[in-house]
Amino acid sequence: MDFQSEPGRFFLNDPSGKMLAEIKYIESDNVLDVVHTFVDSSLRGQGIAGKLLEQVVMKARESGAMIKPSCSFAKAAFATNPEYQKLQYRGDEALIAQEKKNAGKRAAEFVEDQMTVGLGTGSTVFYLVEALAKRVKNETLNITAVATSSRTAELAQKLGITVKSLDEVDHLDLTIDGADEIDANFQGIKGGGGAQTLEKIVACASSKNIWIVDEFKMVYKLGNFGLPLEVIPFGSKELFARLKREGLKPAWRLDENKEHVLTHNHNYLIDLRLGLIEHPHLLANWLDHQVGIVEHGLFLDVVDTVVVGKSEKTEVIPAIRR
Amino acid sequence: MDFQSEPGRFFLNDPSGKMLAEIKYIESDNVLDVVHTFVDSSLRGQGIAGKLLEQVVMKARESGAMIKPSCSFAKAAFATNPEYQKLQYRGDEALIAQEKKNAGKRAAEFVEDQMTVGLGTGSTVFYLVEALAKRVKNETLNITAVATSSRTAELAQKLGITVKSLDEVDHLDLTIDGADEIDANFQGIKGGGGAQTLEKIVACASSKNIWIVDEFKMVYKLGNFGLPLEVIPFGSKELFARLKREGLKPAWRLDENKEHVLTHNHNYLIDLRLGLIEHPHLLANWLDHQVGIVEHGLFLDVVDTVVVGKSEKTEVIPAIRR
Repeated sequence: MDFQSEPGRFFLNDPSGKMLAEIKYIESDNVLDVVHTFVDSSLRGQGIAGKLLEQVVMKARESGAMIKPSCSFAKAAFATNPEYQKLQYRGDEALIAQEKKNAGKRAAEFVEDQMTVGLGTGSTVFYLVEALAKRVKNETLNITAVATSSRTAELAQKLGITVKSLDEVDHLDLTIDGADEIDANFQGIKGGGGAQTLEKIVACASSKNIWIVDEFKMVYKLGNFGLPLEVIPFGSKELFARLKREGLKPAWRLDENKEHVLTHNHNYLIDLRLGLIEHPHLLANWLDHQVGIVEHGLFLDVVDTVVVGKSEKTEVIPAIRR
Repeated sequence: MDFQSEPGRFFLNDPSGKMLAEIKYIESDNVLDVVHTFVDSSLRGQGIAGKLLEQVVMKARESGAMIKPSCSFAKAAFATNPEYQKLQYRGDEALIAQEKKNAGKRAAEFVEDQMTVGLGTGSTVFYLVEALAKRVKNETLNITAVATSSRTAELAQKLGITVKSLDEVDHLDLTIDGADEIDANFQGIKGGGGAQTLEKIVACASSKNIWIVDEFKMVYKLGNFGLPLEVIPFGSKELFARLKREGLKPAWRLDENKEHVLTHNHNYLIDLRLGLIEHPHLLANWLDHQVGIVEHGLFLDVVDTVVVGKSEKTEVIPAIRR
């Protein structure tokens, strides 16, 4: 099939000039950002969109550019194709930091006077706490925070936010936390920092949950990020073997001295390097029943709102699960 | 309805002298041991067995005796009647100790040369370890033991049994452990000693599981014994409230100074004082999914053989679940 091309798009017209299919991308800084794919209903089911995407991939390969799959078709195609994943642009440090900052700042606006707020852990939450502390000071808000790590608690206190332990509060009105991956159905993986157990306890105690992420955390399906498990050290070798037998690709999380990284509860961490999780609820259910696993990093049907930091605008997305 | 009575039985005959219903009990030491109930098929569904049992209950009340429900009808009737439970004989210390000793001794016979054996925790296991150590010495058995507590490990080592950690062995051929309650379907509650997490890990790693108990642990349905939960301290107040809202009658396990009893993993313990657990699998499933619970004491579909110590004979019962 011969496609036509113009700067920023490949497309297919019929003899009368009517457009039948196209893919649009934005080229910048050695990145092709695939923002839109369209196929006319008369041509559906023939793999035209995939062939259009292949044009962009070839262009990227020729010019040594990376691809950022932004439209949902490109996201799905990249999630299921390991060859494409090698070309996938996952942001650079400065951009990601800016996006995290934007997300944290925007999420701070959701906190209202008199609220009891759960604060998660991680670099995005760091920006949130900074922004929230400013609001508390400037607007003299009376809020109470509960933190999922001592690092967050210390920062919040230092910046003048009242911090209590979870046992000292009746309930949480709102928890704002980061996430390591969020899929198209607003299911998430957390625990990159190994704190998923405390984070899940706080999330469950909270009336509302907001996740703040950079745009590269938004994926088609979960699994490219390793799924963290907190496991009891006693018998963990046997558990590791069981996970391996089940094809769940376990890997111990070790520090630079090849020693086990320990959680807040002095347990070990195992990451499941699954690549793609087809059925998160089935996996979560299976993991829930395994003896020796304290908590896994699948956070299903938890989040209410996702705040996605982008370089220019920040998106606030209500998490409507289908 | 007028029943006839003879020493050791109440019964009902038809005019021709044919026996239509009877209940038999053995009277000794101020205990009425209800060993048999029979109702002719022509009279089923009229509550005759219940009325016969009521005769024994009245007799017990008049004489200040206790009742030991040994036949399955009596067990079921006592399990569901709090008034009856006040009269229930639950053994005296010397008898129970003798039964535990008998069970432990009998179970030691299941261990074979070259086996890797899991050893549980508790007073019955104490007798098992003693008997097993004797066999190891007298028959020069070459076995390796893995213990679920340092107390058991120390005793076994002191008596000359090789003890390794669970991580040092490939798998366990057999685990022998106590239980706090075993129902008519061979489902169990464990964790009276707070070690249910380690005990469940060892049980799951074991090809075969034997439970050793005195006869008073054999019940119609689970729940008279409080169901132990190991819970993460962080957020446990909220979890406790959730359990309470669900009607699961939680109680903190505290020491004499009203401090939390800590598990091997430095977690708290909550006992669910349910009285009667109608659907153990549904409850276990619910508990498995609760964030903050490390492990609960329901051991379902785990045991292969139950060794029940009795004062005179010891029963070995294959655990066939219906």
